[in-house]
Amino acid sequence: MTGEFDLIARHFRRAQDARAPGVVLAGGDDCALLAPTPGMQLAISTDTLVEGVHFPRDTPPADLGWKALAVNLSDLAAMGATPRGCVLALTLPLVDDAWVATFAEGFLALADAAHCPLVGGDTTSGPLSITVTVFGEVPAGEALRRAGARAGDLVCVSGTPGDAALGLERWLAGNHDRHDPAILRLLRPVPRLALGVELRGVATACIDVSDGLLGDLAHIVAESSRATGLSLGAELQLAALPRSPSLAALSDEAALEHQLAGGDDYELCFTVPVQALAALRVAAASAQVPVAVIGRITDDGRIRCLGTDGCEWQPRRRGWDHFANEE
Amino acid sequence: MTGEFDLIARHFRRAQDARAPGVVLAGGDDCALLAPTPGMQLAISTDTLVEGVHFPRDTPPADLGWKALAVNLSDLAAMGATPRGCVLALTLPLVDDAWVATFAEGFLALADAAHCPLVGGDTTSGPLSITVTVFGEVPAGEALRRAGARAGDLVCVSGTPGDAALGLERWLAGNHDRHDPAILRLLRPVPRLALGVELRGVATACIDVSDGLLGDLAHIVAESSRATGLSLGAELQLAALPRSPSLAALSDEAALEHQLAGGDDYELCFTVPVQALAALRVAAASAQVPVAVIGRITDDGRIRCLGTDGCEWQPRRRGWDHFANEE
Repeated sequence: MTGEFDLIARHFRRAQDARAPGVVLAGGDDCALLAPTPGMQLAISTDTLVEGVHFPRDTPPADLGWKALAVNLSDLAAMGATPRGCVLALTLPLVDDAWVATFAEGFLALADAAHCPLVGGDTTSGPLSITVTVFGEVPAGEALRRAGARAGDLVCVSGTPGDAALGLERWLAGNHDRHDPAILRLLRPVPRLALGVELRGVATACIDVSDGLLGDLAHIVAESSRATGLSLGAELQLAALPRSPSLAALSDEAALEHQLAGGDDYELCFTVPVQALAALRVAAASAQVPVAVIGRITDDGRIRCLGTDGCEWQPRRRGWDHFANEE
Repeated sequence: MTGEFDLIARHFRRAQDARAPGVVLAGGDDCALLAPTPGMQLAISTDTLVEGVHFPRDTPPADLGWKALAVNLSDLAAMGATPRGCVLALTLPLVDDAWVATFAEGFLALADAAHCPLVGGDTTSGPLSITVTVFGEVPAGEALRRAGARAGDLVCVSGTPGDAALGLERWLAGNHDRHDPAILRLLRPVPRLALGVELRGVATACIDVSDGLLGDLAHIVAESSRATGLSLGAELQLAALPRSPSLAALSDEAALEHQLAGGDDYELCFTVPVQALAALRVAAASAQVPVAVIGRITDDGRIRCLGTDGCEWQPRRRGWDHFANEE
């Protein structure tokens, strides 16, 4: 018929997605159809990116396509789930075929890399925003929850948090060099899917670091406290925080702010019992992702960051929240 | 922590949703977890409503909450799927607790009526838009597809299409009387879930009428033509079109325009083989939904509307499309 239907069909619908494992029907009908794998549970996450809120207005559309899927896949990674498919709801101010083609290029590049076929979508006119919903599978009872941390568990993080926040600063300052590792981390975050799968049966709790390490760790502590009825906390050793070469140019204070409160890294923060440390090394090696032990879960109801002198360090902020300023 | 998380927890998270059949985990983690029913396929649909595009700016938030879910459930109905859960991505210009509370009231009222628990969500700041993704289940191989119509099949429709378009006209003209049946149809469409389930094994093809009867029937014809390699068409008898009392005040011409090209009714348009007519009567009676036979599928590649005089009638428009004006 007309534009809306053609827009998705032209740029996103591909024969191979309809033939992906478990996909019964992709596109061209009222619903997509997936065939669940026996014994698996379905993990679902949805996230919206709004222009000017979640990404700068001059973000290249291919990077935006990649990132819109990446932030959702990161939620699957944090549950230990394997991607099975996704749907895309794209709201655009006007039909711009070149823009959509480039957006689709980035989106589908990650969809292919993560074996996450796009099975459905909706295109509407309005201010630019992108909502992706992803579906993954995890063996029944093996999902990595936020609520499973216990006092004494080690707190761990993958990769080097803080890079994306530095990348955003540079981007906003006019540096659009895609070869800058910090900027690349901002534009093309890589969801830690392989690590999430390897952490099944190893980690007691897991979350992805989207709003800053301290803020996201606080969710693990809060949900685990709720689940146990205890007042859990966490103690981080600042010297143990992995720091990328990109952050070396900053003062120690500024680097720590990025590492502890910078968002958009999409690393995994998780807890493991002390006796699982060897299994963790195996998991990290299998997933080929660097993992650092940065502290432990406590039972004193506080989240503290300790310097090498043993003194407590207070970050200026703990992360961000879209509506925090209005409240 | 802060506003975003509280907003969903405060207004949408309810203990009973976490205990609904098949729900393993609802809210408070990176993903929701559902337990698929063995032997069932998963039907997925996503739809976005944007202020000023899909609904007038003065739409009451409770009705908006209802409708955002209804348009998605209607896609499940059109596949013959039974709802199992949904996620909500809500973008709001600012935190307005009273607004969200009222929106949630309408949304959850339909979620309860349709046994479709809200299992996850995302709240962001930005221009008002609402994306809902629904999950349903349908026995493997029994989903109602658009592509199954064959020449000679009867074309059917549920209810009385055209009412919602009349309701929109009245609303835009300043009539906000909720007791007006046409306006109620606009504000509170009822997805035909029971009928969809009853049509499994009876209908050969099915679609929900969101963009106007003729335009949506054209999708059945197009997808069925593609599937068969034939050039199918359809012939509708105007006298057979069900017309509600609300449309009686209009001229015959205007009423037909509403019936054939008015959107937002969320009735089902479907095809059945002639020999399934008795089974159709049973299905409609079981679902307690009026169903009318309005024409048949042809093999001449055209969609025609015939008056009582046998002459062809041309509607001014066939439906709408969000981007049609820009192309």
